[in-house]
Amino acid sequence: MTKIRLGIVGYGNIGRGVEYAISQNNDMELVAIFTRRNSDAIMPVTAGVKVYSIAEAGKHIDSIDVMMLCGGSATDLMEQTPCFAAHFNCVDSFDTHARIPEYFAVVDEISKQSKKVSIISTGWDPGLFSLLRVLGMACLPNGCGYTFWGKGLSQGHSDAIRRIQGVKFAAQYTIPIVNAVDAVRKGSNPTLTARQKHIRECFVVAETGSDLKVIEQRIKTMPHYFSDYETIVHFILETEFKAEHIKMPHGGFIFRTGTTGKENAHQQRMEFSLQLDSNPEFTANVMVAYARAAHRLNLKNETGARTVFDIPVGLLVPDTMEELREKVL
Amino acid sequence: MTKIRLGIVGYGNIGRGVEYAISQNNDMELVAIFTRRNSDAIMPVTAGVKVYSIAEAGKHIDSIDVMMLCGGSATDLMEQTPCFAAHFNCVDSFDTHARIPEYFAVVDEISKQSKKVSIISTGWDPGLFSLLRVLGMACLPNGCGYTFWGKGLSQGHSDAIRRIQGVKFAAQYTIPIVNAVDAVRKGSNPTLTARQKHIRECFVVAETGSDLKVIEQRIKTMPHYFSDYETIVHFILETEFKAEHIKMPHGGFIFRTGTTGKENAHQQRMEFSLQLDSNPEFTANVMVAYARAAHRLNLKNETGARTVFDIPVGLLVPDTMEELREKVL
Repeated sequence: MTKIRLGIVGYGNIGRGVEYAISQNNDMELVAIFTRRNSDAIMPVTAGVKVYSIAEAGKHIDSIDVMMLCGGSATDLMEQTPCFAAHFNCVDSFDTHARIPEYFAVVDEISKQSKKVSIISTGWDPGLFSLLRVLGMACLPNGCGYTFWGKGLSQGHSDAIRRIQGVKFAAQYTIPIVNAVDAVRKGSNPTLTARQKHIRECFVVAETGSDLKVIEQRIKTMPHYFSDYETIVHFILETEFKAEHIKMPHGGFIFRTGTTGKENAHQQRMEFSLQLDSNPEFTANVMVAYARAAHRLNLKNETGARTVFDIPVGLLVPDTMEELREKVL
Repeated sequence: MTKIRLGIVGYGNIGRGVEYAISQNNDMELVAIFTRRNSDAIMPVTAGVKVYSIAEAGKHIDSIDVMMLCGGSATDLMEQTPCFAAHFNCVDSFDTHARIPEYFAVVDEISKQSKKVSIISTGWDPGLFSLLRVLGMACLPNGCGYTFWGKGLSQGHSDAIRRIQGVKFAAQYTIPIVNAVDAVRKGSNPTLTARQKHIRECFVVAETGSDLKVIEQRIKTMPHYFSDYETIVHFILETEFKAEHIKMPHGGFIFRTGTTGKENAHQQRMEFSLQLDSNPEFTANVMVAYARAAHRLNLKNETGARTVFDIPVGLLVPDTMEELREKVL
C-alpha cells in the first residue's frame, strides 16, 4: 500500500499531536517537520524524520501529499495557509470564527489556482461540533440547539489573563453549569444567557508584590472574556500551578432538542459529547482524519477550499465505501 | 423559492412520520401519497394531498423530485426501491444489515441507468449511528467502539414474539445495562458479550387458554432474538397493553473511547446519544433531510446509489455552504 505522505508545519502542542496521530494510522507516514525555530533544536519522536526551516518547504512539493498546518489562528495560519495552499493540499484548525468567511475565500482561490485541496477549520470546535450542529438542524428542524464547553482549559482565556500586569502564570477553566445542561437534556428548551451556561474558574500565579485585588478586579471586568460570566479567581503558588494546571483537558456537549408528529407531541433529543484528556492531541487526530479526505479528493481532481460540511464522512477512514457498507452501516 | 416536491410510498408509521416531517421544512412540499391499500381509506393530514395506488406512480414522474420509500425492509423495500429507482430519486431506511451489499448493488445499477440518485439505509441505525461509528473510527483509530440500543421498543423482536402460537399482543423493550454503559463511559474498554450489554423485557398478552409457561419458554429460547440475552417476560391484560405499550420510544448510545499521545497516556471519549419519544417519526425526519441531499446531488448530475457515508453533511440543511460557514462552523 502506498502511504499518504504528510508534513507538519509548526511543532507546538498540535504539531506534536499530529505526529503521534500519524503513528496511529497505518496508511500514513510523516515525511518532514517544518519550523520557524532553529530546526536543530527540535527532536521529533518519529525515527528518521527530518526537521527543516519553513523556508525550505518548497523543495518538498513532490514528496508530501498533505501539509498539516499546526500554527495558531491568531497570527500563524492567516499567513501560512495561503502560502502553503499555493503548493500543497493542506489541513488546518483555523478557529477565529468571525474571520472564517474571508479566510475561506483566500484559501479557496489559491487552492483552485494550485489545483490542490485545503480543508480549513477542522478539529472539534470548529469541526466535529459544527458537524453535529448541522446534523441536529437537519434532523430536528423544529427544535433548539445548544453548545456547552468544558470542563476544560481555555487557551485563549488563559492567555488573556497572562497579559494582565503582575500575572506570571494563569489557567482558565470553562465549566458548564450542571443545572443548565440538565434543563436542556430534559427538553425544556430554556433560553440561556452566557452567565447561565458557563462558569469561568481561574488559577493565577501573581508576581511577587503585585496587588491581588487589582488583578482579580481586572480579570472579572474584562469585556468579552469574563464580564458576562460568573468568574472565580484563585491565587495559587507556582509549585501548585506546575503540578496541577499544565494539562490540557477539554470537552463539551452539543444538544439538539425538538418535537415531531401530530401537535408536536413527541420530544426527541440528540446529544454529542467529548471528554478529552488532551485537547490538542484530539484536535490533531481529527486533522489527520481530514488529511486522508483531502488527499482522496485531490486524487479525484477536486480543487479549492473545503470545510467539514463538504466532506463525506466515509472519506475519513482508510476503509472503502464498500467495506463501510458491509461492516459499519 | 421552488420547493422540493416529495412523494410518499407506504403510509404506515414511517410514512405518516415523513408527512409530519415535510410540514416542518419550508423548502419542501408533499405532492402525493402512494399506497397498496385502498387509496380511499387513507386520510392524509396535509390539506389537498392526493392518495393514489402504487400502480399509478409512473404518471407522476415529472411532478415529484424525490420519492420517500416508507415500507418495511423485510419484504417491501427489496421490491419497491428497485422499481421506484428506475424513475425517481429515492430515499429509504432499509435496515436488513446482512443484505445491504446486494441491495446497494441492485439500486446502484438501476439508479445509474435512470440517471437518478437513491440514498439507502438512512434513519438512525443504520444512519446517524453509522455516521458516528465512522467518525469515531476516524478520530480515535487506537480505540474501541460501542453501540447500545434503548431503552426502546424493538419492532422486530415484538413481531417475533407475536408469531408464537397463543400470543395476541407483544411489546419487547431493549434496555442497555447501566453498568456496561458506565464501564464504557469510564474508558475501561471492556469486552462485552450480548448478554452483558442489553436486557430484553417483554410484555405479552396471551390468547385465552394458552399455556403461559410454554410461551415464556419459547420466547426465552428463541435463537438470535432472545437466547443470548437475559430476557424478562411479563404477561399482562389487553387493557394494560393498550394503555401502556402502544408508543414507540427508542434511542441509544454510540461510544468511541481511545487513547492518544506519548505512551497512549491520554484517554479520549466521544459519545453520541438519542432519546426518542417516537422512533418512526425521528427516522422519518432523518429520511427527509437526506431527501434534500438526494435532490441536490441529482441536480449536479450525480447518479447511482449512496449511503450516509457518501453525503456531505452540509447538504442536509436548506442553508448554503457559505451560510453554514458563517453561522454554524
